[in-house]
Amino acid sequence: MNKIHKFKFSVAYADTDAGGIMYHGRYIEIAERARMDMMRGINMPDGDMGFVVKKLDIKYMTPLKLADDFVLETRITGVGAVSMELEQKFVHDDVICAIMHITVAYIGADMKLKAVPDDITARLK
Amino acid sequence: MNKIHKFKFSVAYADTDAGGIMYHGRYIEIAERARMDMMRGINMPDGDMGFVVKKLDIKYMTPLKLADDFVLETRITGVGAVSMELEQKFVHDDVICAIMHITVAYIGADMKLKAVPDDITARLK
Amino acid sequence: MNKIHKFKFSVAYADTDAGGIMYHGRYIEIAERARMDMMRGINMPDGDMGFVVKKLDIKYMTPLKLADDFVLETRITGVGAVSMELEQKFVHDDVICAIMHITVAYIGADMKLKAVPDDITARLK
Amino acid sequence: MNKIHKFKFSVAYADTDAGGIMYHGRYIEIAERARMDMMRGINMPDGDMGFVVKKLDIKYMTPLKLADDFVLETRITGVGAVSMELEQKFVHDDVICAIMHITVAYIGADMKLKAVPDDITARLK
Repeated sequence: MNKIHKFKFSVAYADTDAGGIMYHGRYIEIAERARMDMMRGINMPDGDMGFVVKKLDIKYMTPLKLADDFVLETRITGVGAVSMELEQKFVHDDVICAIMHITVAYIGADMKLKAVPDDITARLK
Repeated sequence: MNKIHKFKFSVAYADTDAGGIMYHGRYIEIAERARMDMMRGINMPDGDMGFVVKKLDIKYMTPLKLADDFVLETRITGVGAVSMELEQKFVHDDVICAIMHITVAYIGADMKLKAVPDDITARLK
Repeated sequence: MNKIHKFKFSVAYADTDAGGIMYHGRYIEIAERARMDMMRGINMPDGDMGFVVKKLDIKYMTPLKLADDFVLETRITGVGAVSMELEQKFVHDDVICAIMHITVAYIGADMKLKAVPDDITARLK
Repeated sequence: MNKIHKFKFSVAYADTDAGGIMYHGRYIEIAERARMDMMRGINMPDGDMGFVVKKLDIKYMTPLKLADDFVLETRITGVGAVSMELEQKFVHDDVICAIMHITVAYIGADMKLKAVPDDITARLK
């Protein structure tokens, strides 16, 4: 559970707002890109809905700006029977610009909670 | 075919970019909101995929800015066997800020082109 | 502090994802639209940056779906010297689909924290 | 003018819609990311607004889907006194999924059209 997944990204105009900084809602989208990248190659049973976000919190410390290259560091901090918790840090020039905590739940084809697939549990060890 | 559907919207921070104006990609999203509003109450046969965008062009004349209230004027300009063409104008203070033309095709449950439902054709007359 | 601001919105394709529900990141964007609407008519001193999001948390209970009409209920829950706290509920058919808490700080033209303008403080009473 | 800039990207949930495919508006955003990447390292005179989109057209042929890895091929097709034209192709598994043509104009600090900086013109040769 101490493995850090790193995902590089750059701030485009699409990510900024009239305040001249990265729009606060964009951090959440880009965090999802990083989780997708982390899950790459993990096979989910056919038909399963997959992970759905149940809750998240994010704290913004230093604004990211247009053309900034940053790294999203993602770490799984907990795995339950049907859910998983992660911490994601936005790091630019060795400064943590924002920290997010998120809980996702695993949903089966019947749209109900289901045990997290072994593939994912295995990867944690 | 001369009926104009009007949809009001306001520019939020989410729609702007670091240039201080509405991000060019956002016009396309908001145009879709207006078409959704126009199609409200039209029943599509169960299982049909519905309209899918085949092509569009947009010309930007005067930038919309944060907190601008504008109207999206949508008009159907053509209806074919399996597709429909629309013109959408972004109007602010009687000035046309942008004009978009879009062609959408109707897709059935089998993911193939299908005749536009009578409900929609009927509404055009 | 008990006044509830209501903002109506509809889920468009732009707001949904391949899971068939409203994308979790979109709730944050639409919440910002509701706050913009609530602040309408409040004059900020020229040059001030305005409110910047410092932190937020959101809990997703029942997914919103394509074409759902919902109401965003926004309530100011606290006002500090340089910041403000709000609660925002996404309500559809009398069901609370998601709840968000957000803290915004007021930033002046010099990009530093500044006292919340009297106009806003006044409106709270 | 025959140099092709390649930019790799993957379709995340944020890019998809309830139709199960990449949302048509997202192509425009991702095209901008590719142009940002292409312009990396080119210095614009201080204070200049930079390139602003004047018009674009896009044709969608084959839908991109969740988790698809694709390449955005960008090519400058024309350079005028104050503007530039580009063609951008979304390629997945050797299939062109969408083609976009876009015209951007160079805007100076006074918000008026201005000659494209020599740095950029030079890079074209």
